[in-house]
Amino acid sequence: MPDSEGLSSVKGFRYAAVEAGIRYEHRLDLSLIAADFDCVAAGVFTTNKICAAPVRLSRSRINNTIRGIIINATNANACTGEEGFRNAETITRAVADAVGVSPESILAASTGIIGVQLPCEKIVRAIPKLVSSLSPQNGSLLARAIMTTDTVPKEAYRSFTCSRGNFSIAGTAKGAGMIAPNMATLLVFLVTDAPVAKSDLDSVFSRCINKSLNAITIDGDMSTNDTAIILSPAVRDTLSGKDLSLFEEALLDVLCDLAEKLVMDAEGATKLARIIVEGARDDDDARKIARAAANSLLVKTALFGMDPNWGRIACAAGYSGAEVSEERLSIYFGDLCLLRNGVPQNPPREEMIKSMRDRDIRITINAGMGNGTFRFLTSDISYEYVKINAEYST
Amino acid sequence: MPDSEGLSSVKGFRYAAVEAGIRYEHRLDLSLIAADFDCVAAGVFTTNKICAAPVRLSRSRINNTIRGIIINATNANACTGEEGFRNAETITRAVADAVGVSPESILAASTGIIGVQLPCEKIVRAIPKLVSSLSPQNGSLLARAIMTTDTVPKEAYRSFTCSRGNFSIAGTAKGAGMIAPNMATLLVFLVTDAPVAKSDLDSVFSRCINKSLNAITIDGDMSTNDTAIILSPAVRDTLSGKDLSLFEEALLDVLCDLAEKLVMDAEGATKLARIIVEGARDDDDARKIARAAANSLLVKTALFGMDPNWGRIACAAGYSGAEVSEERLSIYFGDLCLLRNGVPQNPPREEMIKSMRDRDIRITINAGMGNGTFRFLTSDISYEYVKINAEYST
Repeated sequence: MPDSEGLSSVKGFRYAAVEAGIRYEHRLDLSLIAADFDCVAAGVFTTNKICAAPVRLSRSRINNTIRGIIINATNANACTGEEGFRNAETITRAVADAVGVSPESILAASTGIIGVQLPCEKIVRAIPKLVSSLSPQNGSLLARAIMTTDTVPKEAYRSFTCSRGNFSIAGTAKGAGMIAPNMATLLVFLVTDAPVAKSDLDSVFSRCINKSLNAITIDGDMSTNDTAIILSPAVRDTLSGKDLSLFEEALLDVLCDLAEKLVMDAEGATKLARIIVEGARDDDDARKIARAAANSLLVKTALFGMDPNWGRIACAAGYSGAEVSEERLSIYFGDLCLLRNGVPQNPPREEMIKSMRDRDIRITINAGMGNGTFRFLTSDISYEYVKINAEYST
Repeated sequence: MPDSEGLSSVKGFRYAAVEAGIRYEHRLDLSLIAADFDCVAAGVFTTNKICAAPVRLSRSRINNTIRGIIINATNANACTGEEGFRNAETITRAVADAVGVSPESILAASTGIIGVQLPCEKIVRAIPKLVSSLSPQNGSLLARAIMTTDTVPKEAYRSFTCSRGNFSIAGTAKGAGMIAPNMATLLVFLVTDAPVAKSDLDSVFSRCINKSLNAITIDGDMSTNDTAIILSPAVRDTLSGKDLSLFEEALLDVLCDLAEKLVMDAEGATKLARIIVEGARDDDDARKIARAAANSLLVKTALFGMDPNWGRIACAAGYSGAEVSEERLSIYFGDLCLLRNGVPQNPPREEMIKSMRDRDIRITINAGMGNGTFRFLTSDISYEYVKINAEYST
């Protein structure tokens, strides 16, 4: 069953992770993805104006020929000024020297505490060991090493066949609430052996991210370090036409799989809710409605309480900024209709409660205004969420 | 001490509240404010596109000569279609008949469950008793009758002296999280014996609301029923110039007092945080930064956990949409500087913890970009908040 495989199933990439003692002892905290060949890369980074040094560095190098990504956990290297930026440069240079490639071909990502300088020397000292342990088999080790408050490592994999042969795409992600202790980070790294031209990779990646990682919400905050990067072999003869479409389809599958795993592992979550908006004026309006419902604290606490509270959803639709009208709005929990064209349906109470009992809940909002659709994944807010985020101490 | 007084201290207004059995027995649920004279009114209503019948009715009458406001708790009369609107009309007509004024001079407000028709006959039957119990002394009774999950009734009062004599302004508010069971409502009612022209009242009221009720956040949701109304005697000789400024000052005081009481009584709250933004590019940017920090779930859980987590605040400033720049940003908890021009200050841990211990916490964000300022009040998110909002069942 190839679709249960992960990073290690994609030819041409090697992985490593070591305990560098960045903030804690005996914790995997430094990881490396290395390509055996020159790659093109596409990246999507946080739009937060306060962004971490590795984000600034990777953004400036994303159009270069890329050979690897160095990743550290437990320290975000954010709010660390020019010293933080120089540290990120020093570390990528050390990686490049050890691997034998250009410093400009190494990207960087960090997650962890904000406002503390990286222990740069410690990290540089750990790099030879990191590089010497690179192996195609270490994909799952890397998936584990980038975790923060995540409870399980996350990998996804798809293969596809096109006129040029068989190719595969794999990725790993960490998130756990878009927030780890002290405000962290969504990190996503993908590799593929499918050759895609840089400009195609940019547009395909950004489209797929919008339908997957930009369609999930856990607590609505946007980190200083959010980073998603994909690497693809830099060759002349790249996929096009139908072959490129098959690549995009497989990539979207991988990203949706990771997105779902992120929400499933949200801090303290007991529910995964699929918010499906249909009949909006257009897709943009559908996204607004889905996002408002998915972000509403009242909707999220109702999910936790297993309360089929369609009023909170109607209310979120009303303030979403999208065109909505009470007498056209319908709301379903699973297949159960609670509101039809603005008229409460009052199904039997037992059925309403039953519709909320599963871990995986489907909520459909039909705006009755047009053909716009969008899907969003969200989680509930539980006691455990408050506990995790209140008890963490700077 | 006149400033500790409330609605009953303003000459010319009478109040009543009775148990009409709207949703529960033995609960004050129907209230009336009646003016002894014709009034002008100003109103600020929810901008939610799904809005309750009483909001639609009051909005359509707000420019009329006004004689009273009928208010019910426990049922929002929202998502109730045309029948809901006709019910609101019927109820205001019954009030007008009993008082002996025009139906068009009665406003309405509701709070409570969404999607259930009002028991209109029951309410109409209760109106004679309601009207016959009108008394200037019942101000505090009314403040209690409009509560939902509020734990204390809220009133505020100011008097001021101007060239035309002594005047007073009083108000009451209910909120408790901008949310009562099943998605409710901020309701605010103010009365004054100061004569203010309709056009002045509109602009003064809207300015004051923006600096008070629109500068607080508890859970960021916007209800279908939010309503704030002020009544002032309709006379020819109204306040102007300096006298009008004194009125505006007193009104802002009353509204800020109510806003603070609302946040203090937020569902499950253990903290009141004053988010003070200074040095933003302009006041609009200052508001964006203050609102982002005040709405951030991560900031709110950190407040609950008494964690001086300035990183979460810097992050919120970064995604607020305002112009911010890491190397100009400073953050203070009380008088303690945690970040100065982008450089973490690392004060002694004891002092940091001490800065979070009080119920009332002051957080100052200086953007270093200009002279824009704005203040926002917010509360924390506690276990109790999740409990209140998860356990309420439709």
